Amino acid sequence: MKTPVRIAVTGAAGQINYSLLFRIASGELFGPKQPVILHLLEIPQAMDHLQGIVMELEDCAYPLLYAIHPTHDPNVAFRDVDYAFLIGARPRGPGMKRADLLDANAQIFATQGQALNQHAHRNVKVLICGNPANTNCLVAIANAPELDSKNFTAMTRLDHNRAISMLAHQCGVLTSDIKCMTVWGNHSCTQYPDVYHAKVKGKPAIQLIDEQWVIDTFVPTIQFRGAEIIKIRGQSSAASAANAAIDHMQTWVNGTAHGDWASMAVPSDGIYGISKDLVFSFPVTCKNGGYEIVPDLEINKISNERLKLSEKELQEERKQIKNLLRNRK
Amino acid sequence: MKTPVRIAVTGAAGQINYSLLFRIASGELFGPKQPVILHLLEIPQAMDHLQGIVMELEDCAYPLLYAIHPTHDPNVAFRDVDYAFLIGARPRGPGMKRADLLDANAQIFATQGQALNQHAHRNVKVLICGNPANTNCLVAIANAPELDSKNFTAMTRLDHNRAISMLAHQCGVLTSDIKCMTVWGNHSCTQYPDVYHAKVKGKPAIQLIDEQWVIDTFVPTIQFRGAEIIKIRGQSSAASAANAAIDHMQTWVNGTAHGDWASMAVPSDGIYGISKDLVFSFPVTCKNGGYEIVPDLEINKISNERLKLSEKELQEERKQIKNLLRNRK
Repeated sequence: MKTPVRIAVTGAAGQINYSLLFRIASGELFGPKQPVILHLLEIPQAMDHLQGIVMELEDCAYPLLYAIHPTHDPNVAFRDVDYAFLIGARPRGPGMKRADLLDANAQIFATQGQALNQHAHRNVKVLICGNPANTNCLVAIANAPELDSKNFTAMTRLDHNRAISMLAHQCGVLTSDIKCMTVWGNHSCTQYPDVYHAKVKGKPAIQLIDEQWVIDTFVPTIQFRGAEIIKIRGQSSAASAANAAIDHMQTWVNGTAHGDWASMAVPSDGIYGISKDLVFSFPVTCKNGGYEIVPDLEINKISNERLKLSEKELQEERKQIKNLLRNRK
Repeated sequence: MKTPVRIAVTGAAGQINYSLLFRIASGELFGPKQPVILHLLEIPQAMDHLQGIVMELEDCAYPLLYAIHPTHDPNVAFRDVDYAFLIGARPRGPGMKRADLLDANAQIFATQGQALNQHAHRNVKVLICGNPANTNCLVAIANAPELDSKNFTAMTRLDHNRAISMLAHQCGVLTSDIKCMTVWGNHSCTQYPDVYHAKVKGKPAIQLIDEQWVIDTFVPTIQFRGAEIIKIRGQSSAASAANAAIDHMQTWVNGTAHGDWASMAVPSDGIYGISKDLVFSFPVTCKNGGYEIVPDLEINKISNERLKLSEKELQEERKQIKNLLRNRK
């Protein structure tokens, strides 16, 4: 057996983690020979509920689950962790304005960024799922000046998976027949699922589908899928979000397949004209535990407008929480 | 890729399935090369909620998930299925007597037994989790006269896993250090978790622990763990039950490890003096897709009293639903 890896999750008593934790502990994330130690962060008011989840994890007798550390202190939760899933976020309360919500969450991710900066393993891989994920990621990076900003990512993999599934359905193929799907931008309704580079059984997708269907149906369906799920389930996506979190982290650790890529929200380096001070979803290839943004893709006029729209939204979000970015240039 | 296997689940929109389905679809049950087709059975009133789960399953873009068939008709749900997880059951309503509950559930499992009898693959493996699981299993068997009764099992794996976890914790070892745990009897408070044959790192467990602790603490803690979880979580075990269902089916399909066994509730053949007309949890070894009850274990006086108590409870349950057993000798 290998040395156990330490995995922190936040919002540990929430619905996404109720799916995620059991899949991590079973070995789905890092395989059947990698023991794990779970660090579970929750707010003090949810510690009782978290206890029930700890008991259920124990009740699985997972051979790979070496220890469970529940805590409400970020400085304990992130100590020596190799991986961090930042899932918990403040939901919008009654009468809460968007600016208030942004600010409340930015405060949480500033604290967590500082705790990661102080306590986490220097090569920690951080995945931010809690919304607004891109901007929360930006705040966490700003508050962790001693960690490489490339250690921080935000999740657009659920959108990416939804886009693959919908295109596969439209073309009557398996999801594994779809390659090079891209979701650009913010994990919000301005996200842009881009099929212009996607391939279906090796052929350009755009040769197989009607462009008008892409514009009128595909793009808005993916953009508003989260809201649609809430309408039908009465709750936001949980098991599918947990699944995407596993996919995201697995891809980052194990790499992308040759000839394919994934979508990850990462700090922009100015590529594709996206301003450098944002966390933006790009197509990325992963290898040896690192990622590279796929360069030199041709961006057509339709796509470019969508990228700029999402960039603009992210710039506005940034403006609202800029007081929390002071810790890093 | 292999031919897809067809897997039916009942109570598809319930909490256990919200964990189970995503783990099956990801390949955790039968590995990364075995495609699956999910048959999802729900009552008509829950079909809207089920639609949300179907959407989330689609949103995972699982490469192994070839198709999803939601239905409220057992005759559609069980058509050609290779595996069936019978999870849905009527919960106890306000003012409902235990006898009414037994009867309501027996009706459900009689109908499902008949549908399996008519439509399932002749080698279908059936796991009954819905409570009262042992007696529901008995009813299903009685109503599926053309299927081998050895195709039907009920779940005590969650109890088994809990017992392993608690013993491992007490001995300060890993769960993988515990072998030959047994849970006997009914999946109810009369179940008997038996450590007298269990081994800890190859040594008899009973040499390492205090027998009084076993009697006063271990046995009742395992027997009442389900109730304890409900008290703390406000809901019954779901993710840990789903995990046990995966463990049970995996063990049945892939076999038990050399020198170890698992607990499964199966039709008694009279072994250990347990009457033949009951479904009773025994220690079993699995091989080539079949199981054998572990023979010739020495049952001490303490254990024998417990076995008889659980047998008596099952006989009483049987008496109450005997009108539904008429289809089979």
